[in-house]
Amino acid sequence: MNLPANKKKISIVCFSGDFDKMVAAFTIASGAAATNREVTLFFTFWGLNALKKNKGRAATGNSFMAKAFNFLMGGLNNLPLSRLNFFGASPKLMTMMMKKHNVATLPELVEAAHALGVRIVACEMAMRILEVEQSDMIEEVEDVVGVATFLNDSEDAHIIFI
Amino acid sequence: MNLPANKKKISIVCFSGDFDKMVAAFTIASGAAATNREVTLFFTFWGLNALKKNKGRAATGNSFMAKAFNFLMGGLNNLPLSRLNFFGASPKLMTMMMKKHNVATLPELVEAAHALGVRIVACEMAMRILEVEQSDMIEEVEDVVGVATFLNDSEDAHIIFI
Amino acid sequence: MNLPANKKKISIVCFSGDFDKMVAAFTIASGAAATNREVTLFFTFWGLNALKKNKGRAATGNSFMAKAFNFLMGGLNNLPLSRLNFFGASPKLMTMMMKKHNVATLPELVEAAHALGVRIVACEMAMRILEVEQSDMIEEVEDVVGVATFLNDSEDAHIIFI
Repeated sequence: MNLPANKKKISIVCFSGDFDKMVAAFTIASGAAATNREVTLFFTFWGLNALKKNKGRAATGNSFMAKAFNFLMGGLNNLPLSRLNFFGASPKLMTMMMKKHNVATLPELVEAAHALGVRIVACEMAMRILEVEQSDMIEEVEDVVGVATFLNDSEDAHIIFI
Repeated sequence: MNLPANKKKISIVCFSGDFDKMVAAFTIASGAAATNREVTLFFTFWGLNALKKNKGRAATGNSFMAKAFNFLMGGLNNLPLSRLNFFGASPKLMTMMMKKHNVATLPELVEAAHALGVRIVACEMAMRILEVEQSDMIEEVEDVVGVATFLNDSEDAHIIFI
Repeated sequence: MNLPANKKKISIVCFSGDFDKMVAAFTIASGAAATNREVTLFFTFWGLNALKKNKGRAATGNSFMAKAFNFLMGGLNNLPLSRLNFFGASPKLMTMMMKKHNVATLPELVEAAHALGVRIVACEMAMRILEVEQSDMIEEVEDVVGVATFLNDSEDAHIIFI
């Protein structure tokens, strides 16, 4: 007799804050959740930018260095393409191309993933280094967790690093 | 009694079209197939370039934006190195270094993977956004599949994102 | 009756030599080892730089091309950030930010991983292409292995590509 607890799990480490890679992460997450898998997105380093409440550039943090990094990294509306970025023009063009072909845009994907029950958590260590607080982040962030906790929760999960 | 259906599976999402990462993806794929695993390579976004029939730069697509992107991304012979690319000189140098040390080059790796039974499929959504048709791609592409189908096929597979 | 051999395994392909991604790889590796998993780090391509004994830039190799590549790639003290690198200034700033917040620095992470029993191996093919010898690498490198051996050893492991 199989227990219902045997649900397949996928954990995605969202390390890169690249626009295109975030589209990929959320597409995989939503697809997996829609096919009845338990999905956790763990945002760390550059990935944290995709979760900032302030979707544009903002000097978050206390120290000068943290402020400078956070400003330069930007927010959800400033994520660069991993290639051919052209100083930020390409993500906007890419969004136009996605809309034209009726593909969900990045903010729509974030919303869909959350609605489908994808768990969104932020990395405690990266938040500490970059001086980002939970209050700086969107409401969809369920929890702030350490690496050890994330790894424990992902013991039976496939781990994907994006 | 174990059924022979229990063959180990590996699915590789080939997202990046970087020369060096494609070498890594095909090397892992061939190695895994040679050791009796079922391997699927799912090409999406920049990865699509490695599958274009026209191995050089070509303005594939209908809209101006798709044409521009496809031209700039190039084909199998124009994949950049993920670092120290020097405007395309480095992948050529790297190929020379691979030949010198009798390591299979990228086109040889593609051929070997196909011969070893590695399944090569292309992402439907990325093809739609970038206006790439199956007829634009090499014959080794077995199928065009959606993300949901890919995830279903990969239910028992280890998923690697490259 | 569960045999003790059933220890969970994680294999990380350290392909990228980016400073931030190496911090991520070693953090995940140490975290997993500390929670009783068997972890192997397989260093290949740019990742090899993190293992060089000479932590700065050095023209390792025999041929002119290998020397040039190895010099440009640098060593553990010259790993670039994957974004906002600013010609090498940012990894130094990031290290300062890590120290300030009592987060282990990269050399400390390498040491901790080794102490926790993480297996560190180098890719035979990449060493051949880039003309790097085992004697060029730090003592913590346990073995030089081929891709096939690595894949065999990782048969029951989750494979993460960083």
